Amino acid sequence: MSNPTAAMLVIGDEILSGRTRDSNMHHLAQELTKQGIVLAEVRVVADQHAAIVAALNALRGAFDHVFTSGGIGPTHDDITADAVAAAFGVSIGIRDDARALLAAHYERQGQEFNAARQRMARIPEGASLIDNPVSIAPGFTLENVHVMAGVPTIFQAMVASVLPTLTGGAPLLSQSLRIARGEGEIAGPLADLAAEFPDLSFGSYPFQKDGAYGANVVVRGQDGARVDAAMTRLAGIFPA
Amino acid sequence: MSNPTAAMLVIGDEILSGRTRDSNMHHLAQELTKQGIVLAEVRVVADQHAAIVAALNALRGAFDHVFTSGGIGPTHDDITADAVAAAFGVSIGIRDDARALLAAHYERQGQEFNAARQRMARIPEGASLIDNPVSIAPGFTLENVHVMAGVPTIFQAMVASVLPTLTGGAPLLSQSLRIARGEGEIAGPLADLAAEFPDLSFGSYPFQKDGAYGANVVVRGQDGARVDAAMTRLAGIFPA
Repeated sequence: MSNPTAAMLVIGDEILSGRTRDSNMHHLAQELTKQGIVLAEVRVVADQHAAIVAALNALRGAFDHVFTSGGIGPTHDDITADAVAAAFGVSIGIRDDARALLAAHYERQGQEFNAARQRMARIPEGASLIDNPVSIAPGFTLENVHVMAGVPTIFQAMVASVLPTLTGGAPLLSQSLRIARGEGEIAGPLADLAAEFPDLSFGSYPFQKDGAYGANVVVRGQDGARVDAAMTRLAGIFPA
Repeated sequence: MSNPTAAMLVIGDEILSGRTRDSNMHHLAQELTKQGIVLAEVRVVADQHAAIVAALNALRGAFDHVFTSGGIGPTHDDITADAVAAAFGVSIGIRDDARALLAAHYERQGQEFNAARQRMARIPEGASLIDNPVSIAPGFTLENVHVMAGVPTIFQAMVASVLPTLTGGAPLLSQSLRIARGEGEIAGPLADLAAEFPDLSFGSYPFQKDGAYGANVVVRGQDGARVDAAMTRLAGIFPA
């Protein structure tokens, strides 16, 4: 497949401690799939400089795009922007355009634009800003790394700002069939079908719910006619 | 901190495509925190041999424990056991005790113990089995790697089987305070407090909901008296 690839880096102690359930991964995965960009890996790391830098450098070298969430607020544990600058070996400081956006916002709100809030205008050298219509403090893109907030409403707004600027591939189409048999009975015929359609991917996702069991079989590919053909064969093998 | 560390490896195309929302990460994070084991990193990779092997070898070298979820069922896309064997450089084959468990199960159910189902008895050399009270097919532990199913009910049962066998650390205690002010006003005093209590960790997690906004500040540490002391100071700085 020649679709562009992406990785996500979630930065947040609160996810790793079990305090918060991450929802940004699921949102980004769905949006990238629609755009034909293949999310190939996700990493979650703690709010630690060395861990963020190491993960960023591994991922930005391996994939076409890297999306980060978390760690760009005003508090002492928000260290993502500095870690990104360190990963790229560039300087970081308060940038005039980001500062102006924030100063106007806090003036409108009648709130003090104090030192902590000014930290949110710290942007690595060479980055472009990502619009934040929710709470103004911008994200930023540096080369192939897109740095976004962790609060889900803001993360989603930033994803909506960034994705239209990226070149996607042919969207990955998928169809699924719910089969009310054990995976152990589905497995043999499914492996044969997968061998017959090497250009498609076949996934089997078992369920057990309210006494019923079986598997959802998902067929994915870029050519809709081929996906249709495989689904027709599958439905013939496992009639409802 | 001298608490043991852990990483999680989630194996699953269905998470990366956005089809399924992962819930195993959140469950494991909560259970490890209770046990005093620090979940330091999570990775999600696709059902691809090379990606699984590379992630496993990176994580098992860096952390005390690695927990995997997904990819141990009977279908052709279930390749985790073979990838674990390859990562450790050991052989893999159908093991008599696992085979006997499964054979008895399918006989009770009046279902054929076919070739696909026998795949679930493939266990890397040197591993010990992890009990699966839900659907019998076992997980396994090889050195510091614990290999478990992706279906949440089975994953949770396997976690319950494995965790009591591991040595934990002092549980990490946490308390939180909901502060109805912008993070930009909390940030300065919070940074000062964090410097005053270097043995504790302070996290700030902003919220915006139904027109209200503020942050939940979480204080974590192993010494309950110290956490209490920090919370008292915090509540004094930000009275309700």
